[in-house]
Amino acid sequence: MKIAILGTGMVGTTLGTKLTKLGHSVMMGSRINNNPRAFDWVSNNGTLASAGTFSAAAAFGEIVFNCTSGLVSLQALQLAGRENLSGKILVDVANPLDFSKGMPPTLSVCNTDSLGEVIQRQFPDVKVVKTLNTVNCQLMVNPGSLKEPGNLFLSGNDNEAKSEVKKLLLDFGWKDIIDLGDITTARGTEQLLPIWIRLMGTLGSGMFNFKIVR
Amino acid sequence: MKIAILGTGMVGTTLGTKLTKLGHSVMMGSRINNNPRAFDWVSNNGTLASAGTFSAAAAFGEIVFNCTSGLVSLQALQLAGRENLSGKILVDVANPLDFSKGMPPTLSVCNTDSLGEVIQRQFPDVKVVKTLNTVNCQLMVNPGSLKEPGNLFLSGNDNEAKSEVKKLLLDFGWKDIIDLGDITTARGTEQLLPIWIRLMGTLGSGMFNFKIVR
Repeated sequence: MKIAILGTGMVGTTLGTKLTKLGHSVMMGSRINNNPRAFDWVSNNGTLASAGTFSAAAAFGEIVFNCTSGLVSLQALQLAGRENLSGKILVDVANPLDFSKGMPPTLSVCNTDSLGEVIQRQFPDVKVVKTLNTVNCQLMVNPGSLKEPGNLFLSGNDNEAKSEVKKLLLDFGWKDIIDLGDITTARGTEQLLPIWIRLMGTLGSGMFNFKIVR
Repeated sequence: MKIAILGTGMVGTTLGTKLTKLGHSVMMGSRINNNPRAFDWVSNNGTLASAGTFSAAAAFGEIVFNCTSGLVSLQALQLAGRENLSGKILVDVANPLDFSKGMPPTLSVCNTDSLGEVIQRQFPDVKVVKTLNTVNCQLMVNPGSLKEPGNLFLSGNDNEAKSEVKKLLLDFGWKDIIDLGDITTARGTEQLLPIWIRLMGTLGSGMFNFKIVR
């Protein structure tokens, strides 16, 4: 499958590498055309890897991953271009974390809204699926590195889109994926971040996850 | 130990019953003196059970549990009386859930603040310990009813107070209790409620918990 990754940070490059290893053609999109991080990533990830602008990547991908920082995601998606995203699945991995006032960060949107919902409203003909935003990027692509992998969550209005994304998540190694419902449930997973960050401090590592026990 | 329970709802009566079974003297506090729910509870819980106003209960208790609805907790604590709470441990079990606009509820305070912090600021010489607010009341007092009990969290500024509360939680049957840090970490546990409520809908039951897996 042709997949676009918007954002060349740790999350974007880690997901991009996993997706090429799984045999997908991946274009890494960034604000500028000759982004050195994207260039490095391409040179390390074989013939299935390419890079370009947000717009070029979005035009290329059949599925698009939003791996930009939550505070600039809307801007990045606007640069990606409404026409290039139209009708496609957008896997929204971003969290609206605002570190501008130091630690702990706050959420720039929460409670009565979420980043997932904001994106869905701004791009109504895109199929937004919120997932993976509750684990760090090493775990995203290697859930088996924990003794117990725990759960992943899915939020989105389009059931077929969620099924497609779930297939990719199963390929990543995830097993226990909970579909929370429509995109408004992204409020729940984005609001896991405040305790996630405190737990990272308490446990001294980001290599942990939430498991729902019954 | 003498324990006050503020609030005669499901949470208050369930905790009160467990505490009397553990041999504590429990006074149930409510807004009015002859609250029929409190009267019922007293008549079903033996000689260790008593009831009175918020103020009488707070004066009685060496430890005070806030089991009122989060939206009226401050009001209840004011009725309980600053002089009756001074220097005591206040176990804050409440969540600031606002159901006034229907389902799902929103949080009346979150992100940059929490109910736990609001109470601590309003009652600076009370030792606020936030805990138990991430599970339903059946689980609070019977964690063994799940195949895996999962974790409880503690937030509070006073380490000795947290140790005292932890002893009670161990008596309740909890094993894996994570001290997240000072009272500002209550933002993390209170913001678990949005996903908790969605999970209850998805799973069809409130009998579940979060387990942190590593």
